[in-house]
Amino acid sequence: MYPDPQKITRVTSLGGGPIGGGWAAHFLARGYDVTLYLHDAGETAAFEAVLDTAWKSLTDLGLAPGASRDRLRVVTDLQQAVEGAQFIQESAPENLSLKRKLYAELGRLVTPDVVIGSSTSGLTMTDIQADCATPERCVIGHPFNPPYLLPLVEIVGGRSTDPAAVAWAGAFYESAGKAPLIMKKEIPGFVATRLQEALWREALHMVANGEASAADIDTALINGPAPRMAIQGQCMAFHVACGAGGMATNLDQFGPALKLPWTRLDAPELTQQLRDRMVDGCNEMAAGRRFEDMAAKRDQQIVAVLRAIRDTS
Amino acid sequence: MYPDPQKITRVTSLGGGPIGGGWAAHFLARGYDVTLYLHDAGETAAFEAVLDTAWKSLTDLGLAPGASRDRLRVVTDLQQAVEGAQFIQESAPENLSLKRKLYAELGRLVTPDVVIGSSTSGLTMTDIQADCATPERCVIGHPFNPPYLLPLVEIVGGRSTDPAAVAWAGAFYESAGKAPLIMKKEIPGFVATRLQEALWREALHMVANGEASAADIDTALINGPAPRMAIQGQCMAFHVACGAGGMATNLDQFGPALKLPWTRLDAPELTQQLRDRMVDGCNEMAAGRRFEDMAAKRDQQIVAVLRAIRDTS
Repeated sequence: MYPDPQKITRVTSLGGGPIGGGWAAHFLARGYDVTLYLHDAGETAAFEAVLDTAWKSLTDLGLAPGASRDRLRVVTDLQQAVEGAQFIQESAPENLSLKRKLYAELGRLVTPDVVIGSSTSGLTMTDIQADCATPERCVIGHPFNPPYLLPLVEIVGGRSTDPAAVAWAGAFYESAGKAPLIMKKEIPGFVATRLQEALWREALHMVANGEASAADIDTALINGPAPRMAIQGQCMAFHVACGAGGMATNLDQFGPALKLPWTRLDAPELTQQLRDRMVDGCNEMAAGRRFEDMAAKRDQQIVAVLRAIRDTS
Repeated sequence: MYPDPQKITRVTSLGGGPIGGGWAAHFLARGYDVTLYLHDAGETAAFEAVLDTAWKSLTDLGLAPGASRDRLRVVTDLQQAVEGAQFIQESAPENLSLKRKLYAELGRLVTPDVVIGSSTSGLTMTDIQADCATPERCVIGHPFNPPYLLPLVEIVGGRSTDPAAVAWAGAFYESAGKAPLIMKKEIPGFVATRLQEALWREALHMVANGEASAADIDTALINGPAPRMAIQGQCMAFHVACGAGGMATNLDQFGPALKLPWTRLDAPELTQQLRDRMVDGCNEMAAGRRFEDMAAKRDQQIVAVLRAIRDTS
């Protein structure tokens, strides 16, 4: 029913702010024909500023063959905007009734074989798709800011979404140079924002209690966990740090540390099921590599990251 | 009373595991004469493996003039180990009674003008220094693993520590090429581990609830918040993302999002005092720079980090 995600050439980005504009820049850089919809022609200058900024970085990262800013068309009519589109990225303001009306209209204007991805960070697709006549092709495709640089796209459907549309979105975003994460459940904050928000709230607690300043928080992250997290995430960071025993050693030996007051967030109970999910998950990611090799690779990559930061400071 | 921290040339690292051995490697690379104390000569091979691994990365990052592995002396006698040392980094096992005995002995063996820094991550200096006759020069100097790569050192004294020793440790670690964070209070987990632990526990909750897998957690971090966090931390990431309004806009407009269930960790109350501390803290870090310039710098550095990771993958 849906077209081959590898063969998509024309996409539409609805919204010209930092997110919608950033998406347009990303798709242009990957070699697509892009139509950008602006709610108001007065937003043109702000959008062009986003595109100018993004294009510098995208050029540095390397453009796809044939990629060009000339392949952009900017319109302020919604029907024109979606005409001929093979995929639509929606980045309208975070307002449920506004989005519901928009999706009702998109349901009328867009043929049902075109997947629509929403950049929403705070709403659910179940709510957004309520008044859409073709909710089955509507998914969330949540980017991380700035969307032209950070590869993550979190993908999840609503109650009325066709699982095939979710799978299609994953394949399409991957083909468009993104790192898709297909979510298992529709939860507030998705995955990345939840992780970041836990850290952020712990930071605010420390500042509120006079335990640390804003500068202390950033100093700690920049010089401590963040460079390693950019390479290994957190699960593999612990897996590799624990030597040959990996995540099993981490949880079996240091599990009691989950009871220590090292954050205001209580840990879940360390059941056998949770332990096994973490251990199996890390072993799958390790894919048979020896921990010595993974540690050496980690070090090599941390050195590269630290040098990159130093050389651009 | 304490010697000039810039003029220190001879340091001792107590312990040859990944932390003590990593410290020895770091100090060697910064051009110090280093004495390493091993509890048992049988630990020599493991230590040498740590040093071999570390030296590759340290060489890549750039050695200080005169730095050489030949300036290392390995001993198994504690008195010999501390003889002539101008600074001591202690990385003994995380066992309170063992550390207390060790500090009692160090109190007898080491002249009181030599600062002793402990790598402990889970104990407090107030507890560790209890049986030491010269507790005033004992501080915590907590590194982040791997200590030869990640620059962070969290510094805090115990109840009997001289504030001058804490300040001295900050100046010494900085002079030794580290990024010192002098803490305002003695709290469990210090700053960096608390931030990381909040994120980690939220991750475990998601895995326990079937909302995400270990691979999902790492995918989300690596492709989402982590590369930006490695450059800006989290406070400045939000400050710059909110445009000219900065952290004030973040908290005044999006403060209500702190009540949303985006993590299992409840946020602190957003009092005027907390708001002002965050806003003032970010403005101080911005030091008059325009947000457009900071955003452009952020993008340039994220590009460099992403390229560094890609080129070493």
